[in-house]
Amino acid sequence: MTKIGILGGGQLGYMFLQNALQYPVEISILDPSPHAPCALHAHHFVQGDFADYDTVIEFGKNLDAIGIEIEHVNTDALRELKKMGKHIVPDPEALAIIQDKGVQKEFYDQYQIPTAPYFILDQWEDLKNKTVDFPLFQKTRKGGYDGKGVLFLKDNNNLDHMLQAASVFEQPANVQKEIAVIVVADHMHNIVTYPCVELVFNEEYNLLDYLLMPSSLPNEIAQKAENIAKDVVRNLKSAGVFAVEMFWTKENEIWVNETACRVHNSGHSTIEAAKSSQFDQMLRTLLKLPLGSTELLTTSALVNLIGAEGESGEAQIENIEEVLKLSGTFLHWYAKSETRPGRKMGHITLLHEDIDQLKENIALVNKTIKIIAKK
Amino acid sequence: MTKIGILGGGQLGYMFLQNALQYPVEISILDPSPHAPCALHAHHFVQGDFADYDTVIEFGKNLDAIGIEIEHVNTDALRELKKMGKHIVPDPEALAIIQDKGVQKEFYDQYQIPTAPYFILDQWEDLKNKTVDFPLFQKTRKGGYDGKGVLFLKDNNNLDHMLQAASVFEQPANVQKEIAVIVVADHMHNIVTYPCVELVFNEEYNLLDYLLMPSSLPNEIAQKAENIAKDVVRNLKSAGVFAVEMFWTKENEIWVNETACRVHNSGHSTIEAAKSSQFDQMLRTLLKLPLGSTELLTTSALVNLIGAEGESGEAQIENIEEVLKLSGTFLHWYAKSETRPGRKMGHITLLHEDIDQLKENIALVNKTIKIIAKK
Repeated sequence: MTKIGILGGGQLGYMFLQNALQYPVEISILDPSPHAPCALHAHHFVQGDFADYDTVIEFGKNLDAIGIEIEHVNTDALRELKKMGKHIVPDPEALAIIQDKGVQKEFYDQYQIPTAPYFILDQWEDLKNKTVDFPLFQKTRKGGYDGKGVLFLKDNNNLDHMLQAASVFEQPANVQKEIAVIVVADHMHNIVTYPCVELVFNEEYNLLDYLLMPSSLPNEIAQKAENIAKDVVRNLKSAGVFAVEMFWTKENEIWVNETACRVHNSGHSTIEAAKSSQFDQMLRTLLKLPLGSTELLTTSALVNLIGAEGESGEAQIENIEEVLKLSGTFLHWYAKSETRPGRKMGHITLLHEDIDQLKENIALVNKTIKIIAKK
Repeated sequence: MTKIGILGGGQLGYMFLQNALQYPVEISILDPSPHAPCALHAHHFVQGDFADYDTVIEFGKNLDAIGIEIEHVNTDALRELKKMGKHIVPDPEALAIIQDKGVQKEFYDQYQIPTAPYFILDQWEDLKNKTVDFPLFQKTRKGGYDGKGVLFLKDNNNLDHMLQAASVFEQPANVQKEIAVIVVADHMHNIVTYPCVELVFNEEYNLLDYLLMPSSLPNEIAQKAENIAKDVVRNLKSAGVFAVEMFWTKENEIWVNETACRVHNSGHSTIEAAKSSQFDQMLRTLLKLPLGSTELLTTSALVNLIGAEGESGEAQIENIEEVLKLSGTFLHWYAKSETRPGRKMGHITLLHEDIDQLKENIALVNKTIKIIAKK
């Protein structure tokens, strides 16, 4: 029985585990929190810091294959485990490229992958002495996650509030649509993609409203995005599941925004809507099994369940019955005991062949459901 | 958070658990074996006998809802837990009907549900003194499972080998096809069905080759079977997932063979092939949530993985790569450590829109995969 270890035991590990249990494997999870969603359900749970070299070596040394569900892990330990003959997914060298947004941008340049124009300043204060065009996005090279480590600089008036870390400075794209493509590669360098996903924003609040798969993009644009996403992964030379986030610009170009080298929020509806899910693919890449089918069974949407403003404490979902009585609607609750404003607590997948009915259902879900704290 | 308990922690509980983890629930499992597939993965595992009154009361008294994955459980304890206000699925009175094959046959008669002609003898030896037509099936009233407790009596020559227990004696059906319908009922008496499943036998060996959903039956026959299955469940007056096993006879009639009041082998391909699976429905009925959609996304087949003859010991799958490289093919391994001849060790689900390609894939799976013991 293959022994698999996963660095991180959050919601991505949790959804991975749900699927992995149907294979003849033994799963170990490493996470600093004893309350991590995976803690109770894996074959083995180890409490510890996945960013610590010794902890990761100790965790991995008796396993066959090691994967990740978060990118801020100790890459040097994974390099060492690879030398010991372990199958590491993604490859530590690909992970090293992704972990540093400066190196990631240089990687795109090296392989002629279209991305927003940028420059890197390891001494961030130097921006004040540089002649540059605003606006700019500042993105710290390391440690950014879920919108953290990113700052919008409208002009040079507020530079005292800059993020104080080595950073990439990037020209904002003239965005027509935000899109993402989930790509899967096996250890033999076979590469497959799921159809392009579209991120649909609520224009009034500028918040993500839902994700739609397949996207509403013209076919040739979606195809172009899928090809660029494949290019990214081909050049990362690594097995694994990847999410390539891109902009379709008003100038009709595709720019890569950033790449994740793990399962990703934008691929969650593959659980119900595709033959093999991104989590099934993650398991297959770890076991060196043939890749699964990325064929869609129907059109789908994904609505994230975010902790409501002003609500902190033991989490509770309001009106879930209203949502689950819509045909083809599914809840994924991430088993986090505490809700906080803005925290990702779960998601709803919606399936429907008819796009208008799907949008009606999405609107109802967004209007109805709410994550609050127990009073 | 709703506290759910399941009596039994085998493969059915295991597949239930995989899906249930995506809901805000806390799952407890009761099983006599510490090596039960569910033991490591539920929120709580209690080792104990689900047929024992006190054990079941103790297990259930602090839970909100109690379900089953095996029928040989203590019904009186469930009746008592129901009186204490627990939501019991299926209802103990429905379970009592199903547990006793004599009562089950009388139930069919009472509601004019077509079934094979039969008689009941609590003194089985009385058969010798009775004038009856052979052949007959003898089925013990209680305790039968997976082919156990059933004997084919060709004539009156071998009556010394009869099963020595109160039994139902049944006229064999003139079988054209064996079929099954999975029915789901909620606590409000809403009833839905999945499309009829067909059991396809290898004629040479008379062994189950695969299950096909939807069946190849003429529409009006499949519809008739689905209606009869609904009748059975409507009259059982209970929430839950049910499998109604039936014969399509050569006289073009539908006869109910027997009914299971739990998730069932014949419904496993709903995991991949239907919008909501039978396991999702089981969870929804326990939580009193609206029923899920039983709509099929594509045609599917199911091949059981049975321990090979002459192989006992630590289980191992041969040639799984060959099988998983077929598009739309999925493994469910039941996490049983030991294989034995004839033991159900897992199953393969196959999805394909094209029935001929599906059958080619089934043949390849049946030819290729083998469950053996580690040498």
